[in-house]
Amino acid sequence: MTTIKHQITIIASPDKVYAALATQTGLRHWWTADTRADANVGGKAEFGFDKRSMVFRMKIEELVPGKRVVWSCYGDHPEWDGTILTWTLIPEQNGTTHHFAQSNWKDCTDFCATCNSTWGELMCRLKDYLEGRNPGPHWQE
Amino acid sequence: MTTIKHQITIIASPDKVYAALATQTGLRHWWTADTRADANVGGKAEFGFDKRSMVFRMKIEELVPGKRVVWSCYGDHPEWDGTILTWTLIPEQNGTTHHFAQSNWKDCTDFCATCNSTWGELMCRLKDYLEGRNPGPHWQE
Repeated sequence: MTTIKHQITIIASPDKVYAALATQTGLRHWWTADTRADANVGGKAEFGFDKRSMVFRMKIEELVPGKRVVWSCYGDHPEWDGTILTWTLIPEQNGTTHHFAQSNWKDCTDFCATCNSTWGELMCRLKDYLEGRNPGPHWQE
Repeated sequence: MTTIKHQITIIASPDKVYAALATQTGLRHWWTADTRADANVGGKAEFGFDKRSMVFRMKIEELVPGKRVVWSCYGDHPEWDGTILTWTLIPEQNGTTHHFAQSNWKDCTDFCATCNSTWGELMCRLKDYLEGRNPGPHWQE
């Protein structure tokens, strides 16, 4: 099993970082404009790309305001199916350190390496969004 | 041991991608403006940040024009010391797929996760540079 890990410090409160990860409005600002996300544990989150020819589907496993978001991925993309996405927020004096892990990859394939690069770009986009530099979403039709 | 892997497809020829990785001028455009890189195998490459308070020092192990660049990292940062950086270029119909690996990390620590995020951002910056979007270097004093 392989785990992709990222970490970035953001000049924004844990509550603001949490809102960017746990709400549909927040997620639409930095990942994909085609995001549909429930607000409750046990609900669904879906991330569409290229007119929904690719959709990453998640079950919302944990929502701990200001601290932690966990999703499990199911269906559609065979390499993402069964992976667990965990966002952990650590308060700092002037912001929040944001840890991200996508665990349970069966192997670090070429596709996994491509996703790893995209996650790195997304970490920057999330930071830019929360620090007011308005990067726009990674994907918009 | 842990290996960081990235992959991105760039609309540029393998020779142009190679020049961005194997020449001082190319490296200064997307990584750090404070790059000093020899042009020969056995030579050195140094990447300075924050007025050289941090320097990543490499020995150039392989240079295969249009195909492959390998560096070994030594000294200074204890977590980078002993890591191997390998850039492999695969020609595609309309460009080049660029594989990057930094191997021999002792563990995937928080610093490793932070570097992984930065490598993701750097992959985008390299792509933007080679596709003419002039992102500037990641680090400039």
